[in-house]
Amino acid sequence: LGLVAIKGTDAGAAKVAVIGAGSWGTTVASLTCCNAPTVLWARSKELASEIAATGVNSRYLPDFPMPTRLQVTSVLEEALAGAEVVVMGVPSHGFRSVLMAGAEWIGAGVPVISLTKGLEEGSLKRMTELIAELPGEHPSGVLTGPNLAGEIMSGRPAASVIAMSDETLATELQQVFSRPGFRVYTNPDVIGCEVAGALKNVMALAAGMCDGMGLGDNAKAAVMTRGLAELARLGRALGGQELTFSGLAAMGDLIVTCMSHQSRNRFVGEQLGKGRSIADITAEMQMVAEGIKTSSAAVALGALVGVELPIAEQVAAVIAGAITAAEIVPALMLRQPKAELDGMANRLTDRT
Amino acid sequence: LGLVAIKGTDAGAAKVAVIGAGSWGTTVASLTCCNAPTVLWARSKELASEIAATGVNSRYLPDFPMPTRLQVTSVLEEALAGAEVVVMGVPSHGFRSVLMAGAEWIGAGVPVISLTKGLEEGSLKRMTELIAELPGEHPSGVLTGPNLAGEIMSGRPAASVIAMSDETLATELQQVFSRPGFRVYTNPDVIGCEVAGALKNVMALAAGMCDGMGLGDNAKAAVMTRGLAELARLGRALGGQELTFSGLAAMGDLIVTCMSHQSRNRFVGEQLGKGRSIADITAEMQMVAEGIKTSSAAVALGALVGVELPIAEQVAAVIAGAITAAEIVPALMLRQPKAELDGMANRLTDRT
Repeated sequence: LGLVAIKGTDAGAAKVAVIGAGSWGTTVASLTCCNAPTVLWARSKELASEIAATGVNSRYLPDFPMPTRLQVTSVLEEALAGAEVVVMGVPSHGFRSVLMAGAEWIGAGVPVISLTKGLEEGSLKRMTELIAELPGEHPSGVLTGPNLAGEIMSGRPAASVIAMSDETLATELQQVFSRPGFRVYTNPDVIGCEVAGALKNVMALAAGMCDGMGLGDNAKAAVMTRGLAELARLGRALGGQELTFSGLAAMGDLIVTCMSHQSRNRFVGEQLGKGRSIADITAEMQMVAEGIKTSSAAVALGALVGVELPIAEQVAAVIAGAITAAEIVPALMLRQPKAELDGMANRLTDRT
Repeated sequence: LGLVAIKGTDAGAAKVAVIGAGSWGTTVASLTCCNAPTVLWARSKELASEIAATGVNSRYLPDFPMPTRLQVTSVLEEALAGAEVVVMGVPSHGFRSVLMAGAEWIGAGVPVISLTKGLEEGSLKRMTELIAELPGEHPSGVLTGPNLAGEIMSGRPAASVIAMSDETLATELQQVFSRPGFRVYTNPDVIGCEVAGALKNVMALAAGMCDGMGLGDNAKAAVMTRGLAELARLGRALGGQELTFSGLAAMGDLIVTCMSHQSRNRFVGEQLGKGRSIADITAEMQMVAEGIKTSSAAVALGALVGVELPIAEQVAAVIAGAITAAEIVPALMLRQPKAELDGMANRLTDRT
C-alpha cells in the first residue's frame, strides 16, 4: 500500500488509522479520509482485498461505495506506522487483543479514539481504560452519539460528540471527523459519554423486548425514560457529569438505538421478546450486538460501585436464560416509587 | 341520568366528572369509573346518546367498548353537580369557555385536574392558570405522561403522573386514576409537568417533519434531544423543577409523541415535512393536534420570559407558512455551539 503516496496527496494533514472495518469503522474512515489521509484496517485479508478492488465493504455496508481516497490493509503495521491519530472500531471482546497487537507501531503520544460502545467482560473496563494500558502516554477519547452507519453513508444529517479531557486536542480532532452533514461537538466528559454509550445498548435490548411482546409505545417510552435515569445513575457514580446524560451521547444515542429498526440491539431485544433464545438469535447475525455482553458487565460494575440497575439486571437475566422476557414486564413497569421526584432524587444519590 | 343511583352503587367513593369525550377524556373516564362513580360529559348530544346506547365512542375510540358503569351526559350540570373531582379533557381553545360555563356547578373546594396539553392562545396561560380564574378556591393539577389513549383502552401497560402542589390530595387522586396496568406517580411540580406537556407537542411536530423529509433516525434523535433541552429551558424559566424534565411527564411523553405512529402531532409534522400546508392537513383531521397552536404561543411565552426557543420558532414559522420544512433543516441540525456542555450549560442559565 502506498502510504507515502497518501501522505503526498495531502501534505500536513494528520494520517488517520481506523482499526476495524465493521460498519461503523468503515463509515468513520469514509468520513475522515475526506479530511486527512486515512488507512482502514480490516482483520480479514479477503475483506481488505475486496474493499481495495471494489471500493465497497460488501459484508457490512453493501449499499454504499466508499471514497476512492480511502486506503485499506489487513496488515496492522501498514495502518498504524506513522499514524498521527488511531481510531479503534473493534468490538469490545476483541478490543484489547487488537490494540495490544498493534501497540508497537502506535507512535509516542499518538491519540487513540474509541468507537466501541461496550465494557470489557471480566475486567469491566471501559475502552479508554484499555487504551490507558498501552505503553507510553496516549491521550484517549471516544466518538459517540446517535449515529446509525447506513444513514451517515447515505449522506443524511447526523450529530456526534468527540469526548476527550484535553479540549485543545478535542477541537483538533473535531476537524478530523467533521463533514458537511456530520456535525461533531466536543465534550470533556469521557467517562459519562463512554458509560452512556455502553449502557444505552442494554436499554435498547429492554426497549426491543417491549416491541417483541407488543407492549406498545407507552410502555416502551416509560422503559426508555427509566433506562436513561438508570444509565445516568451509574455514569454519575463512576464520575460522569450530569449534563452529559441529557445530551447527544446519552439521551440522543439511547433514543436512536431504542427507536430505530436499523438498531441491532433493539432487534435482538425484539427477538428475545418474541420468546427466542439468545443463541438462536445471534447464530443468524453477523454483526455484534454489544448490549448482550455489556448487560452482565454493567450489573457487575453496578454492584462494584453500589448502584442498583434494575433494568440491566432483568435484561442480563433474560439473556442468561434465567427468566423470560414476559416475566420481566412487572419489574420494568412497576418498580418505581409512588412519588416520581422522590424516586428520581434517590437515583441522584450516589451510593458509593 | 341516575346520578343518585351511581352514588348508591359505590358509597363513599368520590364522584368524578370528566368534561370532554374526546379520545383521552373518554379513556380517563373509562379508568376512573372502575374506582369511583364517574360521569362523562360530551359536548355533542348525539355523541352522548350514542355512548349511552352502545357503550362505544365511535367518533374517537371506535374499537373499544367502555365499561358499562360509566355514565354519560351532554348536560354540564348533570356531570358537575355533586362531583367531588372535576377532570377537564377539553382542547386548549375551548378549555376556558367550557370551564366557565360549568363554573356555577363546581362545588366549593372541589379539585380540578387538566388533561389538556397546550397553552391558551393570546393569554399564553397554562390550563391550571385558567382553573385558578374560577370563582372560589380550587386545588388544581394535571394528569400527564406517555399515554396514547388507544393503548390504554386496549389494556396495555402505561405509566402517568398526577402533578399537584398539595401532595396529600395528589395521593388521594392517585387512587382515583390508578388501575392495574395504569400506574400513576405523584409530582408536586405542576408548572414543569404542564409546560412539558404543552411543548412536547411542538417538538413532535419538528420530529414528524424529520420523518416527512426522510432525514433519518440520527437526525430525528438529535432534534428530540435538543427539543427536550429547549422545553426544559422554558420550563425552568417559568418555575419548573429540573428533575421533572428527565421524568415521564417530559422525556417520557416527548419520546412517545415523537416516536409513535399513533401520535397526531407527529403525523401533522410528517405531512408538513412532505410539503403540505397546515390548512390541507387539518381539513382532513377530526382530532385536535395541540402543537399547531401551541408553537406560536410557546414562542411568545419564551419572548416574554427571555428564553430562546429555536425549534419552536422554526415550527411556528412553518405552520404560519412563512418557510417550508425543508428550509428549517439547517436550523434544526446546526444551530448548536461547538462544545456540547458549554451549550447545555448556557441552556441551564435562565435569562429572566
